Amino acid sequence: MAFMIAQRAYLKLFLIGMVEKRRGYGYEMLEELKELFKPFGYVPPQSEIYRALHELVQEGVLYRTKKLKGNDPSVDFQEIVLYHFTEDGHDKAELYKKQVKTDLDRCIGMLNKAVTDHF
Amino acid sequence: MAFMIAQRAYLKLFLIGMVEKRRGYGYEMLEELKELFKPFGYVPPQSEIYRALHELVQEGVLYRTKKLKGNDPSVDFQEIVLYHFTEDGHDKAELYKKQVKTDLDRCIGMLNKAVTDHF
Repeated sequence: MAFMIAQRAYLKLFLIGMVEKRRGYGYEMLEELKELFKPFGYVPPQSEIYRALHELVQEGVLYRTKKLKGNDPSVDFQEIVLYHFTEDGHDKAELYKKQVKTDLDRCIGMLNKAVTDHF
Repeated sequence: MAFMIAQRAYLKLFLIGMVEKRRGYGYEMLEELKELFKPFGYVPPQSEIYRALHELVQEGVLYRTKKLKGNDPSVDFQEIVLYHFTEDGHDKAELYKKQVKTDLDRCIGMLNKAVTDHF
């Protein structure tokens, strides 16, 4: 058992939550995550977020679609990446969340123990 | 800012606590730490514990003494390593503990956020 929950697992939980709320825009999720953790002084690395999304796609939880930004593709070729649940993606996500919850509880327990034992 | 508190910092906090309680026997601390985290399924790696102790010595918080186990050195050469606070080690330890407390609170906040947002 690792010392603490993996950063990737933690981020996957939040990414699943965003897709659940139909906010599956790749770039927006990235910005929202950065905003979310600002009060904790933690900046989730972009590479970790992309790897987390990649894993969720690999595991069959999410799939990706792309659309062009703007109406005239000759003017603006920028792609928008969107993430959606696969057919059984929601069930898979629920199962994954259960595992993460177990690890979160364990880690909170370990950190609380450090506080109650030493402060 | 790292995602979570470092394993080494977490272990140093507990090691300081053990020396405070005059339980600074190297080997015993190792065994006590293993026992302490059993309910969490976490086995602190021996190498990490030794590195943590080494850092506390390097930082002038602790110093090390050795004594031979048993009364007759010709029979038993096994050394017992003991850790004690240096003259200003206790003050240094208190300062270090304050930093660790800040990080512990931050991490507990981040993990609790994951629970309240998603479960």
